[in-house]
Amino acid sequence: MFDFKLIKENKNSKARLGEITTDHGKIETPIFMPVGTQATVKAMSSRELKEIKAQIILGNTYHLFLRPGDELIAKAGGLHQFMNWDRPILTDSGGFQVFSLADLREIEEEGVYFRSHLDGSKQFISPEKSMQIQKNLGSDIVMAFDECPPYPATRDYVENSLNRTLRWAERCKKEMENAKGQALFGIIQGGVYPELRKQSVEETTKLDFPGYSIGGLSVGEPKEEMYKMLDYTTPLMDKNKPRYLMGVGTPEDLIEGIYHGVDMFDCVMPTRIARHGQVFTHTGRKTVRNATYKEDFNPLDAECDCHVCQNYSRAYIRHLLKRNEILGVRLTSYHNLYFLLNFAAEIRDAISNDNFINFREEFYNKYKLK
Amino acid sequence: MFDFKLIKENKNSKARLGEITTDHGKIETPIFMPVGTQATVKAMSSRELKEIKAQIILGNTYHLFLRPGDELIAKAGGLHQFMNWDRPILTDSGGFQVFSLADLREIEEEGVYFRSHLDGSKQFISPEKSMQIQKNLGSDIVMAFDECPPYPATRDYVENSLNRTLRWAERCKKEMENAKGQALFGIIQGGVYPELRKQSVEETTKLDFPGYSIGGLSVGEPKEEMYKMLDYTTPLMDKNKPRYLMGVGTPEDLIEGIYHGVDMFDCVMPTRIARHGQVFTHTGRKTVRNATYKEDFNPLDAECDCHVCQNYSRAYIRHLLKRNEILGVRLTSYHNLYFLLNFAAEIRDAISNDNFINFREEFYNKYKLK
Ligand SMILES: [Zn+2]
Ligand SMILES: [Zn+2]
Repeated sequence: MFDFKLIKENKNSKARLGEITTDHGKIETPIFMPVGTQATVKAMSSRELKEIKAQIILGNTYHLFLRPGDELIAKAGGLHQFMNWDRPILTDSGGFQVFSLADLREIEEEGVYFRSHLDGSKQFISPEKSMQIQKNLGSDIVMAFDECPPYPATRDYVENSLNRTLRWAERCKKEMENAKGQALFGIIQGGVYPELRKQSVEETTKLDFPGYSIGGLSVGEPKEEMYKMLDYTTPLMDKNKPRYLMGVGTPEDLIEGIYHGVDMFDCVMPTRIARHGQVFTHTGRKTVRNATYKEDFNPLDAECDCHVCQNYSRAYIRHLLKRNEILGVRLTSYHNLYFLLNFAAEIRDAISNDNFINFREEFYNKYKLK
Repeated sequence: MFDFKLIKENKNSKARLGEITTDHGKIETPIFMPVGTQATVKAMSSRELKEIKAQIILGNTYHLFLRPGDELIAKAGGLHQFMNWDRPILTDSGGFQVFSLADLREIEEEGVYFRSHLDGSKQFISPEKSMQIQKNLGSDIVMAFDECPPYPATRDYVENSLNRTLRWAERCKKEMENAKGQALFGIIQGGVYPELRKQSVEETTKLDFPGYSIGGLSVGEPKEEMYKMLDYTTPLMDKNKPRYLMGVGTPEDLIEGIYHGVDMFDCVMPTRIARHGQVFTHTGRKTVRNATYKEDFNPLDAECDCHVCQNYSRAYIRHLLKRNEILGVRLTSYHNLYFLLNFAAEIRDAISNDNFINFREEFYNKYKLK
């Protein structure tokens, strides 16, 4: 089953409170989804993800298709069973990675031919194939196979790509007709061209998906451009369906996305910067690996109540990172994901208490942007 | 405070049951001690170490002296506080690493000059310096600074080294006179020469330490030689003091060491082989990284009741290891340490129930040695 309930709309912004129901449990929105590219959220265990109150995680179709293979995962009983995660999972379509990671890709109407970034082997993913892979993975939320145009791209390119994405969306829907307990989301494209965004929303909505992703943003365009596009696009979308902004997840993007009416976010950034010794704090990002923290026995973030901040110091974590000890990356990853999940929870509270605009203002007053 | 209580002696072997008391809690012996070289047991958190019932862990003086420095750790409140571990800690003297890792070492009566393996900087550790470092670390059990001769070594070399180690032991004892809550262990040397082992036991025992390590074994000599030396040495030792066999810790070495009257063991092996995808099972070691486990959805060890074996499959762990995902090494490290700690607990039960000889036989019937 799949259901989205719009619980509350903020009076002074487009922010909204909602609840998604899946076979693997409920998800309160707005929500941040940790990314588990290769069937693991990097450096984290599933127990720890539950402890930091992750409600849903993301898996990557492209990576899992190549290794260990979706058929092996199906034999294991699906991705939930394989990776020991019994809460909801969303899988992307593989489209974005085919276009950003793979070599020598050829886009045909039928699908995309490419070479694996791992071993150079020839591969093919079509809308039908992407659906078959995601059926094998058994995710609760499935993404339609789309083309995500680069930035910048000409209007012609984006329009052609958009129309292909629409034809592919229909094929995805057909392929998923018999899938049980898996909700297929359509993807809005259109680059930075308002009239194409409008066309994409209208045509995709006609296909009546249970949810919609906003794709083709956060691909290199200026932040203002992204927010402008969101501001323009979300009011055109069905307000009774969840809205997912793909690949976006800094604290500032989260709060702006929510401000503009987005319900779901994902990003590899929290765990990626963690591996480079960088952490979120209530006053901005800090590189705890730097020498300035050598004898700093304070927690990563004095205002954070996560397990890491309650038990470990910056000096200790810096030592671990400098010595390439796995625990160092474990602790920064844990804290960064906790920070974003807790941030999303605070925002939900703020919307619930009609305090979102204030909360947003306080955030900007305190959080030093890079 | 430090106390050792001999609880029970096995009738048909030299195996014994005991209990050590320290300011940070009690330790049941025989015990395996996970190694936390750089203030972290590799890939593990302190919570996980408690979950697998680690009673005491080991820290390395040489590594911590170089990075992050014992003075920084003292500022943090000691090693327990620095690494968030409130149970007992044993630190080695740095001697073994100076002789095995450092470059260009020069052994003088005063101490050892060497170059850091990290940056080539000139360093010096004497018996007094080693004690000062360990006082800064604040470990519950401190090792005397000794010279561990290589294998093979001539009788003359071993005898000279042994006498120097005795003179150093006296200096260590003097330096630790005023240390509170830290018990200094003397170290028995003597290579594979029985009369030198005897001399070392007698002279070291005269210094009246609260515990004794058996050093200079597991340094390249054949296993039979090691067991023969143990068989000869332990009966000469004070039975009311704990006996620690340094750097030894495969399941077979544990059971043989205990058979010969040893109470304490440590070894980096469980976490080192874990990083190479190798795990202990009740039927012997298995390399779960191998292709043969690709579609094996069984746990690492069907007879293991650890968190990993209850929740993850060989196929999943193999996938993680192949993709260099941190969780892979976390899971193999967790299981391997659990395996050894649980093995030690089973041996304690067997000694307690007068069943040790049977237990040992059953182990050899089932566990395939490499
Ligand atoms: Zn924190
Ligand atoms: Zn296990």
